[in-house]
Amino acid sequence: MDSQKIHMNGGDGPNSYANNSEYQKQLVGYSKIVMTELIEQELDVGIINPDCSPFCVADFGCSVGGNTYLAVQNIIEAVETKYKSNEQDQENPQLQVPEFLVFFNDLVHNDFNTLFNYIHGNEPNYFTTGIPGSFYGRVFPKAFLHFAHSSMSLLYLSRIPEEVLDRKSAAWNKGRIHYSCSGAAKEVEAAYSNQFRKDIQAFLDARAQELVPGGLMAIITLTILDGVLPSDSPMALNFTILGSCLQDMANMGIMSEEKLDSFNLPYYYTSPMELETLIETHGCFDIVRFEKLPTPLKQVVIDVQTAVLSMRVVTEQLFQQHFGKDITEELFQRYAEKLDSNPVLKDDKYRTDASYFVFLKRKTETSKPGS
Amino acid sequence: MDSQKIHMNGGDGPNSYANNSEYQKQLVGYSKIVMTELIEQELDVGIINPDCSPFCVADFGCSVGGNTYLAVQNIIEAVETKYKSNEQDQENPQLQVPEFLVFFNDLVHNDFNTLFNYIHGNEPNYFTTGIPGSFYGRVFPKAFLHFAHSSMSLLYLSRIPEEVLDRKSAAWNKGRIHYSCSGAAKEVEAAYSNQFRKDIQAFLDARAQELVPGGLMAIITLTILDGVLPSDSPMALNFTILGSCLQDMANMGIMSEEKLDSFNLPYYYTSPMELETLIETHGCFDIVRFEKLPTPLKQVVIDVQTAVLSMRVVTEQLFQQHFGKDITEELFQRYAEKLDSNPVLKDDKYRTDASYFVFLKRKTETSKPGS
Repeated sequence: MDSQKIHMNGGDGPNSYANNSEYQKQLVGYSKIVMTELIEQELDVGIINPDCSPFCVADFGCSVGGNTYLAVQNIIEAVETKYKSNEQDQENPQLQVPEFLVFFNDLVHNDFNTLFNYIHGNEPNYFTTGIPGSFYGRVFPKAFLHFAHSSMSLLYLSRIPEEVLDRKSAAWNKGRIHYSCSGAAKEVEAAYSNQFRKDIQAFLDARAQELVPGGLMAIITLTILDGVLPSDSPMALNFTILGSCLQDMANMGIMSEEKLDSFNLPYYYTSPMELETLIETHGCFDIVRFEKLPTPLKQVVIDVQTAVLSMRVVTEQLFQQHFGKDITEELFQRYAEKLDSNPVLKDDKYRTDASYFVFLKRKTETSKPGS
Repeated sequence: MDSQKIHMNGGDGPNSYANNSEYQKQLVGYSKIVMTELIEQELDVGIINPDCSPFCVADFGCSVGGNTYLAVQNIIEAVETKYKSNEQDQENPQLQVPEFLVFFNDLVHNDFNTLFNYIHGNEPNYFTTGIPGSFYGRVFPKAFLHFAHSSMSLLYLSRIPEEVLDRKSAAWNKGRIHYSCSGAAKEVEAAYSNQFRKDIQAFLDARAQELVPGGLMAIITLTILDGVLPSDSPMALNFTILGSCLQDMANMGIMSEEKLDSFNLPYYYTSPMELETLIETHGCFDIVRFEKLPTPLKQVVIDVQTAVLSMRVVTEQLFQQHFGKDITEELFQRYAEKLDSNPVLKDDKYRTDASYFVFLKRKTETSKPGS
């Protein structure tokens, strides 16, 4: 699978990500208060931008539509407030609110056309740019950014671990589409976890170079709570059901067994402890805050149609690229039928996932990396 | 007409701008040698970027595809060469080649998706961003850019002058689609010229603010030679023919007379003298070079099919937005038939257009504007 082609459903139609990402939107809303407070507390405008040059903000993995706009709006309001409070400062009277330059980042195949139309339609009070490229590598010059944001994007691996698709490996995930699916070997999870570790390191390496010393980064990501087995998570049930629909279609000859075996979903759900440890070990960022966000309203999730659409807008492109465009209508119809009769939507015991808000500050004194 | 919707044909199909802009490509090629020479001569890297922060380049009106990529490549090669020659400088040994950040600018409705795919497919050695918005206003923070480029874009007016569509005005251009069309009143040309003057001033105002003092700007634009009447230009003949096809279609009832009367093309072909005077009068830029470029190879123009496609990729969106999607196939078929029997493609006396290369330097001491 070409990781450069992972993207949400584009456009603004009924099956678009733009119109089916209420869950993600609520998380951005929940993070607003704490982010505003931490920007007030941690942003040292005199140090990170002493000459009031443009204040550069980036949203990594912006996708399409309203959530990235909202997140950026929250950041800019908070930074403006911080600058204005500094203007009163007798010692630093020269610091005026700078102009803002916002970079919306996502993979090259993201629908930037729809994104630009949406953002411009809202007449933002900042300069808007799109910056295509994988955030697991450098996309900005060194020491260029003042604030980085990334919401619900770090759960996309840069690639499917090779051994998961290798018949000769103990991690071969035959007939399943994810490490969390019922019956997957523990080696499959280990391969995903290993890939995640490499990806997070690459992400932090790149951001450590791109952020100015003292620059800030806010991350929202979905986790499975510490100590919970992957197979006891809601995504395990969802992906097992989705996988069984594909298996049914393979059994009917709609696709070959080999085609199915060569497909896995590139999502990894870290645990809070795993993520915190990886950031601490990396060494370039101080963890200012690491906290659980409220769970988005249940009705967003327990309605079958909404659940199917939420899954569809995120995964459809991956299925289409691998299996062809014709299969997805049938796939999601089968998925809806099976989901309707399944406990996952109704039983609280499967609520073992939680979104976390992580607020980091680029250390000013460190020898690695990129220095 | 919503000027925000002016854009070339997107995608990379047979009717795309990306595959039908050989003429524009040749102009970029012709300008390479002189631009390289002038960058070597005029770029004072120690003054415009003393701390070797990212070197910011923008292409204004980039459209889609290979020409903008080529232009940017030429600029970056020349700037790199200049930095490297400076590295040998005993007095300034600390100036190293910086990282490059390139901004591709065009209107919001430009096909940035196709652009990003093309640029990334070429694995550029710079950081790539798209920046949507009209270049007749600010799209960058103040004193941010080091080099601005714009090729064949300044002939698009920001809007159709109101009086051209006003029945009560002497400049009403009834039944014609351009000021150059046969029979148009001189007031129509004056209205277009007036709009061009405002637009160029707005363009220069914005760039004067966005470029650092000492920053450079290269412009390529199409002109009608000094003293030539608009009606003696090749575009006059082309637009008169195109307009007569629309008139035929109106006569057949395919569209209403009112619909035709409310349409004009937003192109203005300045003269070298007019353009030079407007830049001098503006006052923020030194004119380093103002020279005629060679005429692109004739075979590019004299083949009817190529001529029709070249016209189509540039104008089709405008016709579709005003008259609806269904008319353009017929329109360009009629255009091809009429063009085939017309002298414009074969007679040298209509070669009264010429492309000019203009190289400007942002003055370091001036009180206007944006200071």
